[in-house]
Amino acid sequence: MAQRIDLVADLGESFGPWTMGDDAALLEVLTSANVACGFHGGDPRVMDRTVAECVRRGVAIGAHPSFPDLVGFGRRAMDLTPHEVRTDVVYQLGALAAFAAYHGTRVAHLAPHGRLGNLVAVRPDYAEAVVDAVTRVDPEIIVLAQDGALADAARAAGLPVAIVGIADRAYEDDGTLVPRSEEGAVIHDVDEIARRTVRMVRDGVIDSRHGREIPVAADTVLLHGDSPEAVETSRRIRAELEGAGVEIAPLDPERLRA
Amino acid sequence: MAQRIDLVADLGESFGPWTMGDDAALLEVLTSANVACGFHGGDPRVMDRTVAECVRRGVAIGAHPSFPDLVGFGRRAMDLTPHEVRTDVVYQLGALAAFAAYHGTRVAHLAPHGRLGNLVAVRPDYAEAVVDAVTRVDPEIIVLAQDGALADAARAAGLPVAIVGIADRAYEDDGTLVPRSEEGAVIHDVDEIARRTVRMVRDGVIDSRHGREIPVAADTVLLHGDSPEAVETSRRIRAELEGAGVEIAPLDPERLRA
Amino acid sequence: MAQRIDLVADLGESFGPWTMGDDAALLEVLTSANVACGFHGGDPRVMDRTVAECVRRGVAIGAHPSFPDLVGFGRRAMDLTPHEVRTDVVYQLGALAAFAAYHGTRVAHLAPHGRLGNLVAVRPDYAEAVVDAVTRVDPEIIVLAQDGALADAARAAGLPVAIVGIADRAYEDDGTLVPRSEEGAVIHDVDEIARRTVRMVRDGVIDSRHGREIPVAADTVLLHGDSPEAVETSRRIRAELEGAGVEIAPLDPERLRA
Amino acid sequence: MAQRIDLVADLGESFGPWTMGDDAALLEVLTSANVACGFHGGDPRVMDRTVAECVRRGVAIGAHPSFPDLVGFGRRAMDLTPHEVRTDVVYQLGALAAFAAYHGTRVAHLAPHGRLGNLVAVRPDYAEAVVDAVTRVDPEIIVLAQDGALADAARAAGLPVAIVGIADRAYEDDGTLVPRSEEGAVIHDVDEIARRTVRMVRDGVIDSRHGREIPVAADTVLLHGDSPEAVETSRRIRAELEGAGVEIAPLDPERLRA
Repeated sequence: MAQRIDLVADLGESFGPWTMGDDAALLEVLTSANVACGFHGGDPRVMDRTVAECVRRGVAIGAHPSFPDLVGFGRRAMDLTPHEVRTDVVYQLGALAAFAAYHGTRVAHLAPHGRLGNLVAVRPDYAEAVVDAVTRVDPEIIVLAQDGALADAARAAGLPVAIVGIADRAYEDDGTLVPRSEEGAVIHDVDEIARRTVRMVRDGVIDSRHGREIPVAADTVLLHGDSPEAVETSRRIRAELEGAGVEIAPLDPERLRA
Repeated sequence: MAQRIDLVADLGESFGPWTMGDDAALLEVLTSANVACGFHGGDPRVMDRTVAECVRRGVAIGAHPSFPDLVGFGRRAMDLTPHEVRTDVVYQLGALAAFAAYHGTRVAHLAPHGRLGNLVAVRPDYAEAVVDAVTRVDPEIIVLAQDGALADAARAAGLPVAIVGIADRAYEDDGTLVPRSEEGAVIHDVDEIARRTVRMVRDGVIDSRHGREIPVAADTVLLHGDSPEAVETSRRIRAELEGAGVEIAPLDPERLRA
Repeated sequence: MAQRIDLVADLGESFGPWTMGDDAALLEVLTSANVACGFHGGDPRVMDRTVAECVRRGVAIGAHPSFPDLVGFGRRAMDLTPHEVRTDVVYQLGALAAFAAYHGTRVAHLAPHGRLGNLVAVRPDYAEAVVDAVTRVDPEIIVLAQDGALADAARAAGLPVAIVGIADRAYEDDGTLVPRSEEGAVIHDVDEIARRTVRMVRDGVIDSRHGREIPVAADTVLLHGDSPEAVETSRRIRAELEGAGVEIAPLDPERLRA
Repeated sequence: MAQRIDLVADLGESFGPWTMGDDAALLEVLTSANVACGFHGGDPRVMDRTVAECVRRGVAIGAHPSFPDLVGFGRRAMDLTPHEVRTDVVYQLGALAAFAAYHGTRVAHLAPHGRLGNLVAVRPDYAEAVVDAVTRVDPEIIVLAQDGALADAARAAGLPVAIVGIADRAYEDDGTLVPRSEEGAVIHDVDEIARRTVRMVRDGVIDSRHGREIPVAADTVLLHGDSPEAVETSRRIRAELEGAGVEIAPLDPERLRA
């Protein structure tokens, strides 16, 4: 059976007069994009042109909702109630869905941003809030998540779930990521990242920091675009995957239901 | 033929800890609601509960997009480009549409708020921008407008249009409103307002400030809810209309297409 | 020695078109006001007229800085760094100081609002951040606080400190407040509140929930203004204090230095 | 008599995670900085470090207040009342003044940003509003303006005024700028800009688009920093001025009073 993988990155995080990332370069590499919805980045003009570009290039779009913290870029924890999380996600998802409709497409997936993204992996109440929003607004939407509370809640609700593989982070023996605060948590060597990505996608395994081969089941690989090096690394990852015979294609919701 | 009219008011204009208007009282009288979408009032919690209440009472919901000016409540002119107007409207319409979907309904109409609402009546470029947004996001949405550029552009695009009658404002002989700055522009007498509303709806005419009977073709009547008196007036208007044998019912898009 | 006490309340928490509290009624009772600085309430027009009214009535003004969370009214915890707290406080303090200067007065005190106000009592890093801001911007400013980290840090830095007494909350035997979540935490009986305030100010004691007389050293008493009842209670407290021979007067920084 | 000139540019226009301009490079060239105050750019962290860097390098700081329009970067006209302009300016000026105090300096000047900056030159009501704010908050502050309503109102109020010379824009015979919409309005040639700046500063004249020598009385020259070329041009201008024996020094309020 031929392998197939989606490549995803955060896009549309510019705001007003300020530019972030090299979206044009990334769009040549991606098959899916997490599009900012205005709460941490992305104003209506940025969202409009990001969606238009995704459509032009056949890149699937996803909602990337955040805590309401523009100045903090959604990276700071906020003590919201699950009801606040749910309603903030509905609002952002809807805003993006209208740009998708305007440009003749739909929101294919949803992936919480920043600190909200971290917290939905470990807080079942937040995970349930996000799943409730998606389920009632559009149950065809794929939930992107690492293994954790959000993936569990989404599967329990019958939503399609895509597990995100992260190629430039070290893994523990139990399959969790090495915390960023520890030495060696982030891998910078391009060859190493490309090699790990191919292993993850083609062989379904990754080498832990202690050299142990552990199983991973990534449906999509998260790329970064916040530096020229990052874009170069993304191109390299795509080339290596293609060289290894892996098909690069957007997520298919039918394959992703529990 | 039995007459039929929709009654509409601005709802959901509270924000965070601040309350505006008596939405609960108005909801007993209305058949449609213009729901604030976050740019001049209405945060995700307010939008959520406003839509939920509308659904519970069978009140049709409409998007009420504004210039992005929370502190100015959308009442101050902003020199936006038509592209900025179009994208701001798409964003707000989408956000509300997601709350509608969450609660099992859809956005039935759209009515620009405040200064944007004034400007779309006289600026064809803004009118086109709003119509472009509605047409491509959801062409089933009814555009609420007074006679003017927005109504013209919406009809030209094949969108259903509902003309808003205003019962507490004096009219000139040519059917335009007497400017607010002039003496007698706003009618405060409840009996007079109720009488004029019935004339407008049942007989299709209103008496101009100079006593001339002029034709009006209102599909919906705009009520106010920003004071206890306003709510009382709204109740009275509804009672008088019902007493005159007028059916009070939400807008029907099929009747409203050009 | 004649007793003397300051009466303080939160003021200027309206925003744009939305009104909060009955500031005019409270201003007749107060000697000091905590004025919102735009991050949780209070826009530049509200700040301007609040400061103008305080000056007209001889009420001392204080900065009431908040987490940057308008929609949440500063009541939600945000995981800011101490550097973010310090710079947010400098910004808000400065904004209010300019309105004070415009109206010919100065900022007399500072009291963190909402969740920030809770956290500075227990997080020494946040307390240090606030004290650093005050010390370097204007070391004549009095810090209002309950006993805790902020009061400690302010005293250590040589700032004048005023301890806030709260008359409508039950106390534990150790002088801390009974948590709001517990039965009986908030006292609603006006007679009881007035009696406790007089005890606190004139006798320097308050009765704990277990009936034990515990020492309190309030320099100012916090009043509430968010309901007609609250305003009435505030008037009653002032009348009882005056009847007991207590002088109602603004804080004096010279008396408040460690 | 040795000539002397101030060099000024807009600084601190980054926001949250987004960077704008190369402030570090510009700071090597400037003697004064227009510092964004949060309404169009500049959050409390950006303001703090911008002021700190200005102090470290002996660059005078100025307030750069804007219309409240972050997403539009203060470039869009807003129909504010003069009262709204005055209170928005007081707020922003105060916020910056507190960062100045924190870092041991003061606000030396004020220059309205963007569209507000354009409008104060032609709307006497807005000009009066800005002058009222400055006069009552701190009458030592120098007002930076081109010839026009703001300069007139500031002089009439006894405030020190510094006229801004613009070296990269073509002038009409009457001393006004050629509108940006016209061919040749902006000069891009570095040699030409440097030559014109020296003429303006040393000789007090500039050549109009029709070759006529017209008098200009610049107290400061506005530099740009929004591109690598702009920074290079700024360095070149400074070098040419120094080569021509002109002293580069901050504004002196005593010389600038009418």
